[in-house]
Amino acid sequence: MFQADSRFMKAALVEAQKAYMIGEVPIGAVVVHNGLIVGRGHNLREHLNDGIAHAEVLAIEEACRALQSWRLVDCDLYVTIEPCLMCSGAIINSRIKNVCFGARDPKAGATRSLYTVLEDSRLNHQVHVVEGVLADQSSQIMKDFFKAARKKRKIKTGNS
Amino acid sequence: MFQADSRFMKAALVEAQKAYMIGEVPIGAVVVHNGLIVGRGHNLREHLNDGIAHAEVLAIEEACRALQSWRLVDCDLYVTIEPCLMCSGAIINSRIKNVCFGARDPKAGATRSLYTVLEDSRLNHQVHVVEGVLADQSSQIMKDFFKAARKKRKIKTGNS
Repeated sequence: MFQADSRFMKAALVEAQKAYMIGEVPIGAVVVHNGLIVGRGHNLREHLNDGIAHAEVLAIEEACRALQSWRLVDCDLYVTIEPCLMCSGAIINSRIKNVCFGARDPKAGATRSLYTVLEDSRLNHQVHVVEGVLADQSSQIMKDFFKAARKKRKIKTGNS
Repeated sequence: MFQADSRFMKAALVEAQKAYMIGEVPIGAVVVHNGLIVGRGHNLREHLNDGIAHAEVLAIEEACRALQSWRLVDCDLYVTIEPCLMCSGAIINSRIKNVCFGARDPKAGATRSLYTVLEDSRLNHQVHVVEGVLADQSSQIMKDFFKAARKKRKIKTGNS
């Protein structure tokens, strides 16, 4: 039975912090295999000019390179914020076994909020989902980011 | 109003043929901007050892590089087979305007078959969808591929 390990969520939070520091929406992810991190990623959409460059996708691609396989069958993915549709689909396509996420995303989350695609029995792979690990820290860094972004916009437009 | 252009679906079929020739599931895609193809892709999952390397993702990433933007707001995507969840999510995240696909995928299609996510008004972007353009050719190349793969497996295992 899968037991979420908060050390790995802390590593995902370190990734989110890296995104924060360079002005990207602060979401981080790691892929774990046999107790070791084999893939890390943080959102790089703006820096790579690529809407596909979400934390989960980059962590999965690094894990595929590390394990030299697209089938991440014995791997778990930890991500600070609930995966969107694209990332949930990438998790299914990569055959990830367990997903642990921190906070929900009510606007775009496809794992629990708007959809529950990881547990859809019609698809050829189902993923065990755990949520709420370090949820407060995961959502706090997002709140801080968007608060700072709003402040920056106000200063730019001269609004007090 | 979007008018699907079969010339672009033919270009997507050329991409599918490229995948077929190297033993990949034969799906192809192109991204079109102002009447020009700015991104092409065919499924490369096995060759790149990457479950994310679907035709649509690779075509979108090439288009992002060509246009130097992750926002493909005035772009259309043509793909031979109905996009899966991951690719439908990638289309939404990239702000593609119109999607035209050939044949449905009843097992994993997320645009019309299992889900209709491109038209989900809860998400922050909706995509206009057209289906059925060169559907027969798009599904025939898939049938040919899986028929040949089954034959190869039978020869390998010695079954007549």
